[in-house]
Amino acid sequence: MPFHAAVDEYTFLIEHILDAEALRQTDKFAEATSDLTQAILSEAGKMCDEVLAPLQRAGDLHPARLENGVVRTSPGFDEGWKAIAEGGWIGISADPEYGGMGLPMLLTSAVNEMMSGACLSLQLAPLMGQGQIEALEHHASEEIKALYLPKLISGEWTGTMNLTEPQAGSDVGALKTKAEPNGDGTYSITGQKIYITWGDHDMAENVCHLVLARLPGAPEGTKGISLFLVPKFLPKEDGSVGPRNGVTTVSLEHKMGIHGSPTAVLQYENARGWMVGPEQGGMAAMFTMMNNARLGVGCQGIGVAEAAFQHAMAYALERKQGKSIHGFTIAAHADVRRMLMAMKADVFAARAIALSCAMAIDMAEATGDAGWAARAAFLTPIAKAFGTEVGIRVADIGIQVHGGMGFVEETGAAQFLRDVRVTAIYEGTNGIQAMDLVARKMMDGGEMAGRMLDEIEEGAEAARADLPDMAEAVWQASETLRETTDWLTSKEDLTDRFAGAVPYLHAFARVLGAHFHLHAAMADRGGPREKLARFYMNRLLPEHASLLETVRIGQDDLYAMDLDELSA
Amino acid sequence: MPFHAAVDEYTFLIEHILDAEALRQTDKFAEATSDLTQAILSEAGKMCDEVLAPLQRAGDLHPARLENGVVRTSPGFDEGWKAIAEGGWIGISADPEYGGMGLPMLLTSAVNEMMSGACLSLQLAPLMGQGQIEALEHHASEEIKALYLPKLISGEWTGTMNLTEPQAGSDVGALKTKAEPNGDGTYSITGQKIYITWGDHDMAENVCHLVLARLPGAPEGTKGISLFLVPKFLPKEDGSVGPRNGVTTVSLEHKMGIHGSPTAVLQYENARGWMVGPEQGGMAAMFTMMNNARLGVGCQGIGVAEAAFQHAMAYALERKQGKSIHGFTIAAHADVRRMLMAMKADVFAARAIALSCAMAIDMAEATGDAGWAARAAFLTPIAKAFGTEVGIRVADIGIQVHGGMGFVEETGAAQFLRDVRVTAIYEGTNGIQAMDLVARKMMDGGEMAGRMLDEIEEGAEAARADLPDMAEAVWQASETLRETTDWLTSKEDLTDRFAGAVPYLHAFARVLGAHFHLHAAMADRGGPREKLARFYMNRLLPEHASLLETVRIGQDDLYAMDLDELSA
Repeated sequence: MPFHAAVDEYTFLIEHILDAEALRQTDKFAEATSDLTQAILSEAGKMCDEVLAPLQRAGDLHPARLENGVVRTSPGFDEGWKAIAEGGWIGISADPEYGGMGLPMLLTSAVNEMMSGACLSLQLAPLMGQGQIEALEHHASEEIKALYLPKLISGEWTGTMNLTEPQAGSDVGALKTKAEPNGDGTYSITGQKIYITWGDHDMAENVCHLVLARLPGAPEGTKGISLFLVPKFLPKEDGSVGPRNGVTTVSLEHKMGIHGSPTAVLQYENARGWMVGPEQGGMAAMFTMMNNARLGVGCQGIGVAEAAFQHAMAYALERKQGKSIHGFTIAAHADVRRMLMAMKADVFAARAIALSCAMAIDMAEATGDAGWAARAAFLTPIAKAFGTEVGIRVADIGIQVHGGMGFVEETGAAQFLRDVRVTAIYEGTNGIQAMDLVARKMMDGGEMAGRMLDEIEEGAEAARADLPDMAEAVWQASETLRETTDWLTSKEDLTDRFAGAVPYLHAFARVLGAHFHLHAAMADRGGPREKLARFYMNRLLPEHASLLETVRIGQDDLYAMDLDELSA
Repeated sequence: MPFHAAVDEYTFLIEHILDAEALRQTDKFAEATSDLTQAILSEAGKMCDEVLAPLQRAGDLHPARLENGVVRTSPGFDEGWKAIAEGGWIGISADPEYGGMGLPMLLTSAVNEMMSGACLSLQLAPLMGQGQIEALEHHASEEIKALYLPKLISGEWTGTMNLTEPQAGSDVGALKTKAEPNGDGTYSITGQKIYITWGDHDMAENVCHLVLARLPGAPEGTKGISLFLVPKFLPKEDGSVGPRNGVTTVSLEHKMGIHGSPTAVLQYENARGWMVGPEQGGMAAMFTMMNNARLGVGCQGIGVAEAAFQHAMAYALERKQGKSIHGFTIAAHADVRRMLMAMKADVFAARAIALSCAMAIDMAEATGDAGWAARAAFLTPIAKAFGTEVGIRVADIGIQVHGGMGFVEETGAAQFLRDVRVTAIYEGTNGIQAMDLVARKMMDGGEMAGRMLDEIEEGAEAARADLPDMAEAVWQASETLRETTDWLTSKEDLTDRFAGAVPYLHAFARVLGAHFHLHAAMADRGGPREKLARFYMNRLLPEHASLLETVRIGQDDLYAMDLDELSA
């Protein structure tokens, strides 16, 4: 069944739920008019439907492979990459000075989401590029920017992020890769990096690595880390590619999914690199890149969820089994209907959260306002973890809707789950996101969380006259969330917060999702959005209460058993 | 990391939580002493650890394949099958007259569970055999029993179940396979059957199919279905295999998991078959087989969950990332600890439910008491759906505990999820199980459900003096469940029940799990089982409330949106 980018959904959210007008009133994004937004979404959607979606299965069946040191990509991926590059979809939000469109992250996020739904494996390539472009825009020298940005934005070259080493995953501060100064302003990089997404391939003429490494004598931990740009081929002054640099692809991982996306082990042996940002300022620069990548990964989950929903819906409308007064296809059965509606309702909730996060990033960028920046920072881990959780849950439900056909690979239902499963892991596992939310993002004593809750309750009050039951449900949920937030921020021992971090994040997303559904219901009284919102309030929102109950427990029960008892 | 059958856990449940003494006081199971139970579990456990577990990866990497009409099984599977057969593990509960051990389903279930944890793909072969043995014991003629049962119990031959056809899955009544009488007491079977587990292979000399088909002029729907035994090779009078019968393997499915288990499309062309049970009594006979197979599939989920837990636990004890005051491995981190404890606590809950279901089957069999039979019938869909749900959830958490390594196939963490995912689908999807629970299993007006709740509340009262907080949590949960049960049984329109069937089943399992955890805590005051029970009450039990809230809604919100709106 063909994939269709959910253009109308993005449009509804941007025009009716998020305050896109505020964005258009800033100098930076004045040009992002409603017409332009529509044109971008339609054009990108067309490419997703026609060019990318047909590559989804090809990537799964014919994984990227390493042959004599060269990574060969899946059939058709080079054409897909060309379509993405030539459409300008890598650099939607990149600086126009270097060839970007200078448009909001809101649009980048929507287009990233639809590309993920069409072909997740391939979409990882532009996503990595976007992160690199942004890191270079913010932290690189003018020389590097002038040389690299046009190539990365046009898609002639691609970008990667190199953080992880075998002993340094979530604990990135444990990395050992070394950078020795060459005396000419460049550095010699030596070490091994693992899990490098699109770490090598044959779709573009150069692959540019942003590598975290340690200068001689640098302190231990994250404080001693610097960031280096290390291209696969050393560029000549005219921008053409020169000699091969000292980086080789050792192997590709055999993964559960995203077979079309080569995940490489890279070995650096005195590879020449250029420092990006200040000495030992690598983590800060990397975080620029990671934050947007986190939102991007959340959008991946949503994109796959959208595709899995469409796929299951089409099957349910076609497959006849049993009969009901509601019809002869399985879509008529109450339990199947429940599953389909849960898929659709959660896609809406996660998408609204992700796009509102994008909007906050844009407003922060356009206005320099610290409030918007704090909001973006607060929403990022929620958008990432909830978006990917929804991706996994919805893909899993999609399998179930297919019954036996869901377990057979030919239908494609299983691939959605195999592909999307990694999104809960990379760019910081969802556990790491939740810890970030309850610790770093609550260093303000819960002020930002409180502001979000105020907004949710204002929304509920505004809806009370029209939709009293739904408004009350949202208001009550927000109050429970507020009490739990107060409980959390009262805990000085972070372990007490971490013990309930994952359910807290999930509950926050549930309540935020309700907030956006309520808005949608108000904008579509008596229409399908109100009906979907009611389903969400009835069947998905209630989860928040149980989740929050498990947050207010603290760490004691987790450490009551010792590890010998636990593993016995 | 090597798998270890959880022998001590089965022993604890059988000896301390379930009333195994009652079983031993029946004539039928008087020989199933504590010593014999222990000996069986240890011996089977040894085989699982040493022979089956090493085959798990081999089956995944080298799937069964169809070569020139012959199915070749994965490397080593023939040796594994021999070990299962020679150990007598196919016929633990089979009639001793034909070579079985005549022991309780309780033991069969425990051994099935451990074999599933060791190698799910291969364990499907004896599971299918057991179903066939039981159907023949109950419904076949003496002649067929004498010829087939010794071969099936010894593992010289294997058995399959043939229900599904392309147009007849959950709606088995839609099947079209025909059976024409040959005039000599045999029948000619013609039609296509799909999803036939271990439908063909080279591990044994014959494959015996139990096939649902329709006699000429039989009524439509499930009422017109009869059951036939159709062997791949027609047996000679002396029991040796004779000429090939008219059944061919058309193809094998490419599946998300259980690659070692060949899932066949079988074509019957005037294949000779023998009727089992009365004309048009096929569904009743098949249900004998299906009910135990459903419990067996629940045990598969639990077995995989146990294996995934052990695997994740070993990784967490070894992998160092970051530091905490609790240690240097990831098992020291609160969120990882939470995940590991959730895995262990849910394995215990699901296992206790499954074994208590097996015990009820045994008591019904041994005493002929209708109360035990009703209890077994009530618990079967819960054991199946919750056991498999736990399998999927725990395997999914196992991936998360592994971080990036969880997505890389070499670790095996992903295989657990890929393999176990099908268990929520086959032998009746979990949605079908839930519908069975709220409709057929509540035709008594909720009496059986009420008796289970009485028992849960008696347990809570008995624990109140020692463990007041946990006892109160269980008692309260049971009361909420009782109110919701009353609500459900008050609904005459079954669609109102079906709309909340899945969350209801899951909530029932949650509360039953709490009941067994409370028992375990009482049996191990101050020990690890009390600590694990506390974790369960704190962090897993609360889910019941949200689930039950979504049950008491009925069908209206599901049908408010029409299908055009839903698929828009």
